[in-house]
Amino acid sequence: MNKKIVLHSLAQIALLEAVLMLLPASVSLYYKEYQTVKVFLLVAACVAALQIPIILLTKVKDNENMNFRDGVAIAAGGWIVISLFGALPFYISGEIPDFTNAFFESISGFTTTGSSILNDVEALTKGMQFWRCFTHWVGGMGVLVLTVAILPSDKKSSSLQLMRAECPGPTVEKLVPKGKSSALILYVIYTVLSLTMVAFLVFGGMPLYDSVCTTFATAGTGGFGIKNAGIGFYNSAYLEGVVTVFMIMFGLNFNIYYFIVMKRFSAIYKNSELKMYLTTIMVSIGLICANTMAYGVYNSFSKAFRYSSFQVGSIMTSTGFATADFDSWPEFSKTILVLLMFIGACAGSTGGGFKVSRVLILVRTAKRNLRKLLHPKSVNVVKSDDKSLNIETVHGVSCYLIIYIMIFFISLLIISLNNMDFTSSFTSVTTCFNNIGPGLGKVGPTCNFYELSNLSKYTLSLDMLLGRLECIPVLMMLAPSMWIKKLY
Amino acid sequence: MNKKIVLHSLAQIALLEAVLMLLPASVSLYYKEYQTVKVFLLVAACVAALQIPIILLTKVKDNENMNFRDGVAIAAGGWIVISLFGALPFYISGEIPDFTNAFFESISGFTTTGSSILNDVEALTKGMQFWRCFTHWVGGMGVLVLTVAILPSDKKSSSLQLMRAECPGPTVEKLVPKGKSSALILYVIYTVLSLTMVAFLVFGGMPLYDSVCTTFATAGTGGFGIKNAGIGFYNSAYLEGVVTVFMIMFGLNFNIYYFIVMKRFSAIYKNSELKMYLTTIMVSIGLICANTMAYGVYNSFSKAFRYSSFQVGSIMTSTGFATADFDSWPEFSKTILVLLMFIGACAGSTGGGFKVSRVLILVRTAKRNLRKLLHPKSVNVVKSDDKSLNIETVHGVSCYLIIYIMIFFISLLIISLNNMDFTSSFTSVTTCFNNIGPGLGKVGPTCNFYELSNLSKYTLSLDMLLGRLECIPVLMMLAPSMWIKKLY
Repeated sequence: MNKKIVLHSLAQIALLEAVLMLLPASVSLYYKEYQTVKVFLLVAACVAALQIPIILLTKVKDNENMNFRDGVAIAAGGWIVISLFGALPFYISGEIPDFTNAFFESISGFTTTGSSILNDVEALTKGMQFWRCFTHWVGGMGVLVLTVAILPSDKKSSSLQLMRAECPGPTVEKLVPKGKSSALILYVIYTVLSLTMVAFLVFGGMPLYDSVCTTFATAGTGGFGIKNAGIGFYNSAYLEGVVTVFMIMFGLNFNIYYFIVMKRFSAIYKNSELKMYLTTIMVSIGLICANTMAYGVYNSFSKAFRYSSFQVGSIMTSTGFATADFDSWPEFSKTILVLLMFIGACAGSTGGGFKVSRVLILVRTAKRNLRKLLHPKSVNVVKSDDKSLNIETVHGVSCYLIIYIMIFFISLLIISLNNMDFTSSFTSVTTCFNNIGPGLGKVGPTCNFYELSNLSKYTLSLDMLLGRLECIPVLMMLAPSMWIKKLY
Repeated sequence: MNKKIVLHSLAQIALLEAVLMLLPASVSLYYKEYQTVKVFLLVAACVAALQIPIILLTKVKDNENMNFRDGVAIAAGGWIVISLFGALPFYISGEIPDFTNAFFESISGFTTTGSSILNDVEALTKGMQFWRCFTHWVGGMGVLVLTVAILPSDKKSSSLQLMRAECPGPTVEKLVPKGKSSALILYVIYTVLSLTMVAFLVFGGMPLYDSVCTTFATAGTGGFGIKNAGIGFYNSAYLEGVVTVFMIMFGLNFNIYYFIVMKRFSAIYKNSELKMYLTTIMVSIGLICANTMAYGVYNSFSKAFRYSSFQVGSIMTSTGFATADFDSWPEFSKTILVLLMFIGACAGSTGGGFKVSRVLILVRTAKRNLRKLLHPKSVNVVKSDDKSLNIETVHGVSCYLIIYIMIFFISLLIISLNNMDFTSSFTSVTTCFNNIGPGLGKVGPTCNFYELSNLSKYTLSLDMLLGRLECIPVLMMLAPSMWIKKLY
């Protein structure tokens, strides 16, 4: 890997973050939280003072191009850098006095997980709450995508390498030939959808500040709130409905919106990931409605529908908002939610999890194999939408599954050292690795991650990062040959 | 599929079972349990009276050969037939008055799971206890392997199809060219090992009857006991040691023993499955020793070693004996046991689970893929021992993993309807699907499956069958094209 390019890019990312901190600083200024303003300005200034010399010293020559390894190193490194610096405002202001906790909160924000160590969110200053939610919005579409979209760069191949490294899913398609333009289109769609959501929330009577923070957390499918009671605080079926619909919309592959803009409706109609995503949501809502009503948790269909649709939308898209304590739901409903945690949202969305398109490819691979056993002589190909997938894609998804399971079980072992019950250990890994937020038991929607040991917190932080970057970049960084000069 | 051949073979299997029932009948006679003798003779006579006409009516012509589909149908059907008829003695004698429970106990026996619905095993008559443990021994090496080994047959291709259908693992190798000879060699090794174990137990002071029953349950890696306190009843470190060593030995690929007999030691030395199996056992014992001692569960190393090695051997080989209530162990130790449940024993052993060789292939596939990302131009092949595995084997194991996970999650959903806590639901599926026996929580080593609903019991029964036959044959039976005549 080209260490100069990597260092240069990491410094650029950090500098960008310093600039972004001016936004919460302005919010603090508006709310007259002068102490918080100082903290943000201090952190931003220090970060800038550290990074600008690096950027100048590592000036990259025009003929130096980035390869996939460099992209991977920048992706993994960039996310760690941004989380580390992002933790500083929490830590320096003393609002989260322990650095491990501050780092956990920061990486949970950027990876759009939404798991928190805070008992009392409302004790934070407005500026700090804003920063906490804003990390979701930045992390949702991707740190590198933002870098590519904003920073001036004339290297086409570089921007593509970066975007490939950050979103290595099976269905990453370039929207347009240039990486920079793709990144810009994505951010335009993202911003327009976010502004629409803010408008809907304000229309429903939510204060503007609350609407913006809620939108940040929804758009990034993160889940941090600004009220201890979460969205339930507003106790409004309209607001919950708006959040539900937008959570589901942000869990869609953003290509869908591009297709809508380009009026390519047939591409949408044929999209099997979209069909499976919506079907799964509807079936889950139906089953949980029936189950919770049968057990008398809710006494009317409208209540059952309201709470089940919100919770299903929240968990499937990996947002992690909660308006009901689903840990007290009957087991069948809880098990559905755990399954949804693993399936996750669509590829190319801001959501986490294993991704619907991967599940689809796996189901089809299994079907094909069974069919091949029954009819050994027939020709069977795995199809995704109209295109038949090549063996390398199918193989890649299978490998992803294997790596996913291994990381899951190793994390589970480490977390079990905390000696929580099995349900809490299992779901804390599930929820962090899939970037969701709350789990069941001791990490359920009414609890938080404060009590865990530092070892567990760092393990779960790594899981969040692995989940957000879909494992591969982080794992590649662990290989010695990434660091040692190639000999062949 | 050729329905006549299938029917003929199923009737043969049932008839064989009727003959096998004469063994527990003799035991009952020896213990003067005349009522039980009558039950066994009645069931055997009825089964024989039903099957002999079928065998005569479906006489197979000499030129009719069996294909893979027929083998699959006989495997799936044979196991259901033998479990159904095997439940009759329990049910008719009234010792298990409910048929669902009797069927659960019978299929749990034949699939060598060892999950029980009985609160009081000692209340059974000696003959019935014997039959219960004997089902483990028969199921351990395989019903079809037994059929092939015992019944006269001059069709070489048929016996091979049957053995392939019953053990579709990735490393099923023919020991010798003829299927019938392979089956005989397997049964000779199995019997010799079993007799050796009986001798060791009797030498340690265990009564002969107890020794034989314990050996049946150990050899089949089943786990049914004849005492409510299990092996712990004898409170002898020597006996526990003997059982531990033999559990681990029966979890080995039986090819190893064939190699020993043939003095092909280099093949043993190179066997990577063997290495990984033994390493995993040793590392697990070490970790659990340290963890239980750190939490003060055991106050001396010898005690910790005694209980952890027994429990690790029992769970990893899917036997399911318990001398300690591991549900009260610290979470880290419990999580290790849950992981071992999934890994399981070696392929080609009597044990269940995902199988060590499959885990090995998956780990190597993942490694190869990561290496390929780092060095796109290098040639990478997945190797198993000396041979490099072809892409079809690797692909097959990946598909098995996908199917395995899907079945697991669907079962978990159904079991969660029982509204037990998540730990109990999760481990009850884990333990039945991997043919182990006890789980954690409400299905832990000191509890049983009696309280579950009938739906759960039948689901878990199906899981045991799916686990024992490694999914494929049972799933193939569900495809309509198995039943409808081929049109092409």
